[in-house]
Amino acid sequence: MNTTSVEWVGGIEGHLRLIDQTRLPTELVYLECRDIETVFEAIRSLRVRGAPAIGIAAAYGVCLGVRGAEDGPVAPSQEALTQSLEKAIDYLATSRPTAVNLFWALERMRGAGRQWAGQQLSDQQTPQRLVERLLEEARAIHEEDRAMCHAIGRYGAALLADGQGVLTHCNAGGLATAEYGTALAVFFAAQDAGKRLHVYADETRPLLQGARLTAWELKQRGVDVTLICDSMAAQVMREGRVSAVVVGADRIAANGDTANKIGTYGVALLAAAHGIPFYVAAPTSTFDLSLASGEAIPIEQRAAQEITHGFGRQTAPDGVQVYNPAFDVTPVRLIRAIICERGVIEPVTPEMIARTLQDASFGQKNGGQKDRELSR
Amino acid sequence: MNTTSVEWVGGIEGHLRLIDQTRLPTELVYLECRDIETVFEAIRSLRVRGAPAIGIAAAYGVCLGVRGAEDGPVAPSQEALTQSLEKAIDYLATSRPTAVNLFWALERMRGAGRQWAGQQLSDQQTPQRLVERLLEEARAIHEEDRAMCHAIGRYGAALLADGQGVLTHCNAGGLATAEYGTALAVFFAAQDAGKRLHVYADETRPLLQGARLTAWELKQRGVDVTLICDSMAAQVMREGRVSAVVVGADRIAANGDTANKIGTYGVALLAAAHGIPFYVAAPTSTFDLSLASGEAIPIEQRAAQEITHGFGRQTAPDGVQVYNPAFDVTPVRLIRAIICERGVIEPVTPEMIARTLQDASFGQKNGGQKDRELSR
Repeated sequence: MNTTSVEWVGGIEGHLRLIDQTRLPTELVYLECRDIETVFEAIRSLRVRGAPAIGIAAAYGVCLGVRGAEDGPVAPSQEALTQSLEKAIDYLATSRPTAVNLFWALERMRGAGRQWAGQQLSDQQTPQRLVERLLEEARAIHEEDRAMCHAIGRYGAALLADGQGVLTHCNAGGLATAEYGTALAVFFAAQDAGKRLHVYADETRPLLQGARLTAWELKQRGVDVTLICDSMAAQVMREGRVSAVVVGADRIAANGDTANKIGTYGVALLAAAHGIPFYVAAPTSTFDLSLASGEAIPIEQRAAQEITHGFGRQTAPDGVQVYNPAFDVTPVRLIRAIICERGVIEPVTPEMIARTLQDASFGQKNGGQKDRELSR
Repeated sequence: MNTTSVEWVGGIEGHLRLIDQTRLPTELVYLECRDIETVFEAIRSLRVRGAPAIGIAAAYGVCLGVRGAEDGPVAPSQEALTQSLEKAIDYLATSRPTAVNLFWALERMRGAGRQWAGQQLSDQQTPQRLVERLLEEARAIHEEDRAMCHAIGRYGAALLADGQGVLTHCNAGGLATAEYGTALAVFFAAQDAGKRLHVYADETRPLLQGARLTAWELKQRGVDVTLICDSMAAQVMREGRVSAVVVGADRIAANGDTANKIGTYGVALLAAAHGIPFYVAAPTSTFDLSLASGEAIPIEQRAAQEITHGFGRQTAPDGVQVYNPAFDVTPVRLIRAIICERGVIEPVTPEMIARTLQDASFGQKNGGQKDRELSR
């Protein structure tokens, strides 16, 4: 079954197909976007979520916006086309104001438009050529993300054995990315390599990304997955059902301290208590070297209703005080290795991290996307 | 506000008042039971829950059953009264077939009936005298449980300081007992002693007893309580918000290993990792000396739907595998002390436990109730 969250169908006259993630896990509904307004609404309503997936969808959305502007009896001027491009970018930038990766993708599209405008030959400046150039750039963004996920998967899969039990928390999966995800990429790549894993997925309160998304993605791809409540992870470890933990990351400091969905730190402590290796899988773009350690990472507080009205019904007394941190920070001492698209960082030290990020054979690809959306 | 889960209102012509726990936490509804059938239905439908509370309600239910049988123009014979008593006991015994404490309470009521039947003077054998004797016994059961809870509270409160933050898991509260509960008794007694505590209550997936019951009880009694998801306990500890954990117990082995609601073991590991003392509060009746260690305690598996369809809505994919253990076992090495009605067992060793249970100044009061219902 097709579980690709973002896909361009056809050529220059094609359209964008998204999985409507708000309908999961009970229904798999595809959203066919043939105009920029539908893409805008899909991003705004979280039908597409996860930093990389949002960036990719927005890039294709720009193509649809500019293609829509060229309709008409007379071909528009270069100036009019540039205006329509800027308008499309500005419009999509307001769809999800806090998504850093969205802006990064839109800037790349703006750059592609400038390349087109800077062509010397006027036959290179037709409306059709602009849409072709924009689609080429969107596809490049898409393909780079896919390649990154697959590289993480390959490196991570080598750490796991056939028949092994592993535990994950939240959703660092393919729905949030071009394909494959980060933590889940490791499981998919292991499966592709013929290794049968037994994955235990924490449901991940309050927003249940583990139950709604991770369990769904793994099941769709035929990975053996068992859903548990977050409070059961310790028992699952004690019974020897899992011998590794793999999670994603939202932000990683220069020393390796890792911010991720609330509950990750607890899972890391439980893993340490049971002698189980704890792995973080994340692209190099997740590192924020401006932060010396996790101490500097602010913890977002979220609405009480996520806890008190979590399942469509009020489950706590009126007006009860609630503490609802969205993230926690796992100290580097609890992290066995960080799996990124350039390889496995082990042991996790500031020097190893710096050396990995300086590796000139990569770089620039996902420049600067320090987004907190990846695993939400 | 009256938050007593079980209460006899009035004298021999009085009735039983229960809090309908199925309506919590959004509504506080009292159920006035004037006949045995209403008590039966309340136990069967979990309107009254928790081993001690069920036992107390059933004892009062026997009084209502026998009192109903004596109505009529002619006073019934001793034989007819004894039959009506046996009938009431047999009837209530089927209300919740697995509740050990229910049978224990009903046996005490049977014994009280035999005492009445064995009286030498026939004026001691009137129907009125039987109901008086039964009500006396039910009140004794009730009062013994109340005294036990208050003793646990007093001993536990002495371990906590004014202004301290404490964390609890599940509901070992007053709703399950005559009054006060076990773990929550410690918080109530501290408050009565003028100590202001800041209690963090784990919501306790899958059945949310922490959100529905613990948060409600603490709030009703004016204790400062903050609700968190189970996955947030580690972060709350790390931020220094709590410096003690107090939980209840379902069963304690001879060496101190403690079975309690799933998630307790994880909380104990997290407390150990943060250097926070972990206390178990439970009556001596919770000990099962036939079990040398926690290894012998079977872990009940419960229905997948508790996780996949938590609260009125499906939150996981169709047919996903689920692992749903109801309990876990916290090894004694993680337990700083066990607070019971005879004092504080610290350090927790087989010898200290044996000595406490042999203490002849108590004993017999709650003989043998090794019920798993207390904290459910």
